[in-house]
Amino acid sequence: MNRSLSLPTADRHQPALSLSVIFAPIQTELAQVERQLFNWAKASSPALRDIARQTVSRPGKLIRPGLFLLITGYFGYDNKDKIKIAATIEAIHSASLIHDDIIDSSALRRGQATAFKAFGPEFSLLFGDYLFIKSIGRALDFKNNQIAKILAEASGQMIEGEIEELAQSFNLELTEKAYFKIIGKKTASLFQASCRLASELAGTPAEIKSELETYGFNLGLVFQIVDDLLDLKGETRETGKSRFSDLREGRITLPLIRAIKTWPEEQKKKVAGWLKRRHGEWPEPVVSFNDFLLELETGGALGSSLKTAEKLAERAKACLAKLEASPYQESLIKLTEFVLKREK
Amino acid sequence: MNRSLSLPTADRHQPALSLSVIFAPIQTELAQVERQLFNWAKASSPALRDIARQTVSRPGKLIRPGLFLLITGYFGYDNKDKIKIAATIEAIHSASLIHDDIIDSSALRRGQATAFKAFGPEFSLLFGDYLFIKSIGRALDFKNNQIAKILAEASGQMIEGEIEELAQSFNLELTEKAYFKIIGKKTASLFQASCRLASELAGTPAEIKSELETYGFNLGLVFQIVDDLLDLKGETRETGKSRFSDLREGRITLPLIRAIKTWPEEQKKKVAGWLKRRHGEWPEPVVSFNDFLLELETGGALGSSLKTAEKLAERAKACLAKLEASPYQESLIKLTEFVLKREK
Repeated sequence: MNRSLSLPTADRHQPALSLSVIFAPIQTELAQVERQLFNWAKASSPALRDIARQTVSRPGKLIRPGLFLLITGYFGYDNKDKIKIAATIEAIHSASLIHDDIIDSSALRRGQATAFKAFGPEFSLLFGDYLFIKSIGRALDFKNNQIAKILAEASGQMIEGEIEELAQSFNLELTEKAYFKIIGKKTASLFQASCRLASELAGTPAEIKSELETYGFNLGLVFQIVDDLLDLKGETRETGKSRFSDLREGRITLPLIRAIKTWPEEQKKKVAGWLKRRHGEWPEPVVSFNDFLLELETGGALGSSLKTAEKLAERAKACLAKLEASPYQESLIKLTEFVLKREK
Repeated sequence: MNRSLSLPTADRHQPALSLSVIFAPIQTELAQVERQLFNWAKASSPALRDIARQTVSRPGKLIRPGLFLLITGYFGYDNKDKIKIAATIEAIHSASLIHDDIIDSSALRRGQATAFKAFGPEFSLLFGDYLFIKSIGRALDFKNNQIAKILAEASGQMIEGEIEELAQSFNLELTEKAYFKIIGKKTASLFQASCRLASELAGTPAEIKSELETYGFNLGLVFQIVDDLLDLKGETRETGKSRFSDLREGRITLPLIRAIKTWPEEQKKKVAGWLKRRHGEWPEPVVSFNDFLLELETGGALGSSLKTAEKLAERAKACLAKLEASPYQESLIKLTEFVLKREK
């Protein structure tokens, strides 16, 4: 098959957004967060040090601690524990990624070997446990006991979301409603919690607090839908992750759900046949990923998923309307654009 | 090879101790703990219910919650949260077992299929995460914030111990000191925490509190050494676990450390050769487990390990000397005997 494939992308007429510009108001704090993560890794017991350096002390985009710091910054909240809380949020995210990579047998993350690849599943499993527990344990040392509660609740939600997603693998009947429930838990919950923690600490009025939580939640949904799309159309050298891993794992993402709806019965059966191969064994070269993408795009599933992400991004931004204009508020708006348009 | 093998056992002239007799003073509470675990499993989201029923709601010997309840019982401490705290201790223990079974690829536990065997590694990994996080999350709901701190700390220690043990796999140079450090963390920490929680809640004077913690810690060490011995000499139909799993995983246990010390260089090399086979691949039938046991027993390593366990059990019991005579104190003494002499 040699049909040409043109994938939809978000509008790129605007100049590319860079995270370093968006995070300019919290640049110093984010550097301190990175240092904190590095120091925790360095202080680990010898058996943990290498794997800690490979994972936690090589942080990614720092979007979740960035959210937390932008909101505390907006409210002018400062406290000696602020950096540690932000670093704890990122450590929980790392713990979850380390376990994800075991489940997906992923070799690549952020362009580097995953802990799973470099240290094996046993070590990665235990180190993920350690990071989860240690992070909640650290949160217990903060004076405000809401911090640990919010983080434990979000962690529980993340894991529940992962479990529900796993239970629905290869289920071509998965509804959009169920999909959104899953990604709400697995991804949006920690975005929301990052905003909630910031409002909680700053003592924000309930109304603004609720708007900011809704902002974080919607931003998380956008993040996940774009992630789904990047798994299909992203280039490994850009994303730093293996392409098509969702398909390999039988993960039912939004574009797939949308495509299935538009397909005639015959096409549905054909694709179901491809997907129902044994876990992890994509039937390439029987069917190329490119052919699969073409099948997906027949009914405009990729474009319509991106449209949904755009709508959710608008909804997120609308939640910021009650904040006063300031560099922090501006960064929160730009962050939404970045999450929508990111290519990695 | 057909040498006959007579393994040392603890003195069994006394009538066999039964846990139901030992736990008689807390029989009602333990039944409530089992019901609580069952109800938590039942209340899980549908994707988790089956695996929760397979694991948490089929509790084992309940030694850790038993310890907690005997000590709170001794002090006459009662509180509506007591049962939930005891159940949370057991849930943390279960989480750790679920992950252990993945690491060891164990098919059998308590005579039943493990979660790993019945639900696969991905599901078991996430469910273990869920149990760990959910347990600490539940502990955060108790009024006394020390509860969550003690449980998070013990959980962290358990995982650290597991990581250090894994890092030392197949290391025939492991010292006894390092071994005791590992089992202190991986096993004794939760025994100790169970005692500490009980004293903490009952507001026990510092001196008694410290004695009870030392009791729990030593009891945990005894439990682990006996576990090491049961892995070598226990019958699967008794223990409900696969025999020789420590050897298969290259786990260096006390009897092995003791044996190595007594071996001439040639014998050491031979056994090192056996052990250094690839992870999980015991070279049977090249060498039978029986032959390996004979090599171990040459210098009396099994008997001397049991002696050490007996000494530690005495040390544990001595810590109870300051408690007044009562059915609870008597049960704590008997529990020490049970842990030492158990055959499963």
